[in-house]
Amino acid sequence: MATHYFPTDQVHYTWDASNEPILTIADGDTVVFETRDVSDNQIGPDSDVSVIATLDWDRVYPLAGPVYVEGAEPGDTLAIEILDIHTKGWGWTAILPGLGLLADDFTEPYLRIFDLTEGDVTHFRDDITVPLDPFMGTMGVCPAGASGTPIMPPGVFGGNMDTRQLVRGTTLYLPIQERGALFSTGDAHGCQGDGEICVTGLEAPMYATMRFAVQKRSIPAPQWRTAPGPLTPAVDEGTFFATTGVGPDLYANAQNATRAMIDYLVTEKDLSREDAYLLCSLVVDLKISEIVDAGQFVVSAVLPEAIFPIELL
Amino acid sequence: MATHYFPTDQVHYTWDASNEPILTIADGDTVVFETRDVSDNQIGPDSDVSVIATLDWDRVYPLAGPVYVEGAEPGDTLAIEILDIHTKGWGWTAILPGLGLLADDFTEPYLRIFDLTEGDVTHFRDDITVPLDPFMGTMGVCPAGASGTPIMPPGVFGGNMDTRQLVRGTTLYLPIQERGALFSTGDAHGCQGDGEICVTGLEAPMYATMRFAVQKRSIPAPQWRTAPGPLTPAVDEGTFFATTGVGPDLYANAQNATRAMIDYLVTEKDLSREDAYLLCSLVVDLKISEIVDAGQFVVSAVLPEAIFPIELL
Repeated sequence: MATHYFPTDQVHYTWDASNEPILTIADGDTVVFETRDVSDNQIGPDSDVSVIATLDWDRVYPLAGPVYVEGAEPGDTLAIEILDIHTKGWGWTAILPGLGLLADDFTEPYLRIFDLTEGDVTHFRDDITVPLDPFMGTMGVCPAGASGTPIMPPGVFGGNMDTRQLVRGTTLYLPIQERGALFSTGDAHGCQGDGEICVTGLEAPMYATMRFAVQKRSIPAPQWRTAPGPLTPAVDEGTFFATTGVGPDLYANAQNATRAMIDYLVTEKDLSREDAYLLCSLVVDLKISEIVDAGQFVVSAVLPEAIFPIELL
Repeated sequence: MATHYFPTDQVHYTWDASNEPILTIADGDTVVFETRDVSDNQIGPDSDVSVIATLDWDRVYPLAGPVYVEGAEPGDTLAIEILDIHTKGWGWTAILPGLGLLADDFTEPYLRIFDLTEGDVTHFRDDITVPLDPFMGTMGVCPAGASGTPIMPPGVFGGNMDTRQLVRGTTLYLPIQERGALFSTGDAHGCQGDGEICVTGLEAPMYATMRFAVQKRSIPAPQWRTAPGPLTPAVDEGTFFATTGVGPDLYANAQNATRAMIDYLVTEKDLSREDAYLLCSLVVDLKISEIVDAGQFVVSAVLPEAIFPIELL
């Protein structure tokens, strides 16, 4: 069971079955990754909002990979155990015009740089402490026959899943589509709520170690299993406040629940609308509360109020 | 601050602004409810599946109400604090043909009666212990101008929200639409996952006490705040296993995630497909993991594996 160090100067920007494997590992091996932020270093700790207008989108989603796993065949399952992961001092969150759940409501670019040097929390404002719970936004096997395929849309192959529970201790299972699996990862987040509401999590360069295993079974889409323990341990001592969207369309319900949460944060917590939107992306979880009642569904946007420490006194 | 006992022989089966208030209370008063199961006693602890074919649907959703709250005006907010709630010995869960997230997959009626006499758990199978966390599936103010309006679809007035976090200690906020609020409740569940996948939770007669307050502020749709503490305390010591659905439609994703979870439960836990579907409805939470990535969204169906105690040994 060897440990490999993935070379930090090797990235790819599209899914492509013809990408040459950078690393070939045995079933059971561990790989150490150090990944760039999703902008590929176009945004740095000293950036301001002007960078957004000039982003080279061809460089967004630099992925570390492909990793070729020996013995992995199409139809098998790749198990990726997140052994360790941590941030590297800073991260960013932004409104990117044209993207996000409320793209029509927020049309101007906005950027926040966050100090992550404390490691376990960042201070969104002096009185708003956001716990870090880092994970890789993108972990995928190469889609079958991919050729210059954009990274942004996820699929049954995984990829840009942006799923907050893929943290340290979780094992992700992916359906292998190409021989060798051709695993890649990147787009790491220091934290994010269920949904990734504004389209960016806390985007950050990251250190991560993962152990790979090939399983001779088939699954239809990604699956995962956490380590024992609560899903949101850092905020479970506090209350949770929720807004809802009710109606026939889950997407519109998620939008309306988020709009109501932004209104709440602006009114009750004195945040700008832009900061409220960003904070939703970092900490608010979107739950499908009800999906079966005569075509009228309920989506809840759930805010952990433990991020407001003063409120708990 | 008076306490009122809602008469157990008074129910209504539709939302109707002309329903006569059964109880008139002051702002700040408490009401004790004892509610019938959602079938209005058509299903009992000794029922078998044959009852489903002969259900009188005009009697489904018997609600206790209306409660007229003095001082409540349209545009105000009604705060309902769940002071106490508990089950009454038994409950049921069923597949009702034509209803549920997988109505096309499960076309035959199926009924399970559960023993709730232990109070805090029920035994789905000898080796599957489901924690109870009771709540009222339906809590609503009368919709504006309602006239014989079916109870089943919820709306911005609340109603059949089927939201599992509305447990003891939570305060629900509803936008008042008619003078006096005309609050009603019923359709209680001993437990349910986010989504209410098969259309029934653990349907049960219930005891509940609620305190009512009128707030002179307006909200667009229901909101709620929990008591301090974790959202799923009874299962947080275990692992969580998730299946996913990935694609452009959140509803289809929820269906596919659920289908994969049912396959898992059938294969790994030796459950019938019908029991797997019911168990999903009782304990699996549907999360919108990602809703922003190039039109390809991820819904996760999350199973708390603490319900399988033997697995933890």
